[in-house]
Amino acid sequence: MAEIITLTTDFGLKDPYQGAMKGAILSINPGACLVDITHLVSPGNILEGAFILFEAYGFFPEGTIHVGVVDPGVGGKRMPLLIQTRRHFFIGPDNGFFSLLAEKEEVIRVINLTKKEFFLKEVSPTFHGRDIFAPVAAHLSLGADPSELGEEVKDYLRIELPRTEREGGVLKGEVIHIDSFGNLITNIRGEELKNYGGPLEVSLRGFNVGGVKKTYCTVEKGSPVALIGSSGFLEVAVNSGSAAGVTGASTGCPVTVEAVKI
Amino acid sequence: MAEIITLTTDFGLKDPYQGAMKGAILSINPGACLVDITHLVSPGNILEGAFILFEAYGFFPEGTIHVGVVDPGVGGKRMPLLIQTRRHFFIGPDNGFFSLLAEKEEVIRVINLTKKEFFLKEVSPTFHGRDIFAPVAAHLSLGADPSELGEEVKDYLRIELPRTEREGGVLKGEVIHIDSFGNLITNIRGEELKNYGGPLEVSLRGFNVGGVKKTYCTVEKGSPVALIGSSGFLEVAVNSGSAAGVTGASTGCPVTVEAVKI
Amino acid sequence: MAEIITLTTDFGLKDPYQGAMKGAILSINPGACLVDITHLVSPGNILEGAFILFEAYGFFPEGTIHVGVVDPGVGGKRMPLLIQTRRHFFIGPDNGFFSLLAEKEEVIRVINLTKKEFFLKEVSPTFHGRDIFAPVAAHLSLGADPSELGEEVKDYLRIELPRTEREGGVLKGEVIHIDSFGNLITNIRGEELKNYGGPLEVSLRGFNVGGVKKTYCTVEKGSPVALIGSSGFLEVAVNSGSAAGVTGASTGCPVTVEAVKI
Repeated sequence: MAEIITLTTDFGLKDPYQGAMKGAILSINPGACLVDITHLVSPGNILEGAFILFEAYGFFPEGTIHVGVVDPGVGGKRMPLLIQTRRHFFIGPDNGFFSLLAEKEEVIRVINLTKKEFFLKEVSPTFHGRDIFAPVAAHLSLGADPSELGEEVKDYLRIELPRTEREGGVLKGEVIHIDSFGNLITNIRGEELKNYGGPLEVSLRGFNVGGVKKTYCTVEKGSPVALIGSSGFLEVAVNSGSAAGVTGASTGCPVTVEAVKI
Repeated sequence: MAEIITLTTDFGLKDPYQGAMKGAILSINPGACLVDITHLVSPGNILEGAFILFEAYGFFPEGTIHVGVVDPGVGGKRMPLLIQTRRHFFIGPDNGFFSLLAEKEEVIRVINLTKKEFFLKEVSPTFHGRDIFAPVAAHLSLGADPSELGEEVKDYLRIELPRTEREGGVLKGEVIHIDSFGNLITNIRGEELKNYGGPLEVSLRGFNVGGVKKTYCTVEKGSPVALIGSSGFLEVAVNSGSAAGVTGASTGCPVTVEAVKI
Repeated sequence: MAEIITLTTDFGLKDPYQGAMKGAILSINPGACLVDITHLVSPGNILEGAFILFEAYGFFPEGTIHVGVVDPGVGGKRMPLLIQTRRHFFIGPDNGFFSLLAEKEEVIRVINLTKKEFFLKEVSPTFHGRDIFAPVAAHLSLGADPSELGEEVKDYLRIELPRTEREGGVLKGEVIHIDSFGNLITNIRGEELKNYGGPLEVSLRGFNVGGVKKTYCTVEKGSPVALIGSSGFLEVAVNSGSAAGVTGASTGCPVTVEAVKI
């Protein structure tokens, strides 16, 4: 059975970069099963890339190797990193990319990838995705032991999603991702709304979106609707339309939830 | 030999949705061979997605499973559907997406996918692509019998391409798809032109495109040309250019074919 | 072990064309391992497509089959071509696409693909990617001998990257590719700079970019930097920004390198 290696980068789909990474992997393990999560992360946007992988990785089988290369500091001092958790492997630059995921998982060990025998022979100072992370992932998929690949370290860089705040009865969050449908995904998790007994009122940019519904088509076409999206976050959408278009909201835009006042 | 599963969606290539679907499939059948037809269907545009799959599916081998998820009604009442034809399987929401294809194929049976043991354990009300259609396709690729997956039903929703009309000697159709080259693909099939004996004249938006040629380079660079495209439909193109750009035509734009007047 | 077939085309990612090609391949060799280099070559831009494949192909293992279809002359007189080199196979129309690559490789033989038994049964005059190149690649991946596929020919069309010039101490080149980060990749190869003893000065569009550095983060964020990119060409970038945006440069824009005047 082929080991699965997923790729999440900001390399785009026109340039040779993602193809070269795949070539580097297949040259070492021609049987690897390669899956693109996305190559369309906004250039250098680590948090965006991390959020996209965060939403997808958990659906992959145990043992999957996730390579994440959004690497504005390439060639600088940041470590090349492997995080092994109980179910998955994460490989990429130590810039916080994997910290959201590692938080949800039981971390077994963290390796600073120092063993050059697992890299391509020539390592370009500007393309570690191809020259370090791809070949290390390939060797790991062939059965290399994580401990062979470098030195165990205790820590790695952490980044966090913006936090929600509670002020009186009002829960304040923000839009953290806008998907291609124009759905506004917020940092408010479904569980945070369980404390509220009665009906809720979600608002953003002066739009009262009403309560939290089950799905898009519970409101009329063209109307905004709040729901807990497929990833467990509160989402503002428009039935058969774009909430980003209708509300003009962008990433970082404040969102509030409060109990309906009677 | 790995079973082939193709994916056609409006999920885009930046968001985690198509990756999560692939993870869900590979968690059940790690040996599945996944092929993207496209994830760039215009959001909610069922007819567009159906047309794209219609043009591609026939080139896949017997036994291929085609998953098509353009699903504006997700979480509503539409059935989750499996259509088994003599050569292929089609899986997705019952919204007409597969009706163009089923028409060309010998339908063996139609199944309302009701058996939850073939779904992911938790089914989100807004992402049946990941939670229902992907796992069902994976189980089917592992050899599940279609009849195990739900209840046989007699009917499913049908949609149709816009029809052509004949008025006197004039055949009237319209542009149904504009490809990335700017080629204008119409709903007029090559066979409909066989009744005409002599030379033809294709027109749209006041442009007389002339007769039906074999290929693009039968006219000068920059000139419009009509031909029967690789999918059997009449197409208006521009040699080394964009017919959409040159003519300003968009989807739905009327196209006429008539015999040359002498 | 599955044979690897890479695809480089201008077919886009929305239309059915790349999917139909994959179906045609998998119908003949269901075990082929398909890798997209890109389908986003600018329509008809042979040199751009050739450059993208040029940057990626060398990372694939020996025996890889590279299919390159940027084919504005489809249906015209250009040959369908197979170039076998010591390490790779290249398949596509004879329009110069593979000449950059063949130059770097030891060419074993060049075949005019004339044997119709290796094509799809019906060959459309406008889609040889699907009907000729995909099936020929699939048969080759199954072990067909190149000599069975057509007649050996001696020559094929060559295209070249624009050449650099030296005038006095000044090396003049130009921007040949702008990647999705806005990095400006020039036709000046790293080796051409080895003759210069002392520090260098790279300029374009009135911007003095300074000397040749190792990596992006050797300059402050937002500042331009010149370096030898991961593919061996001189590149002008902006640390954490877009050099195309900052400088306004486009493809063809002149770039000069000279020794620093003291």
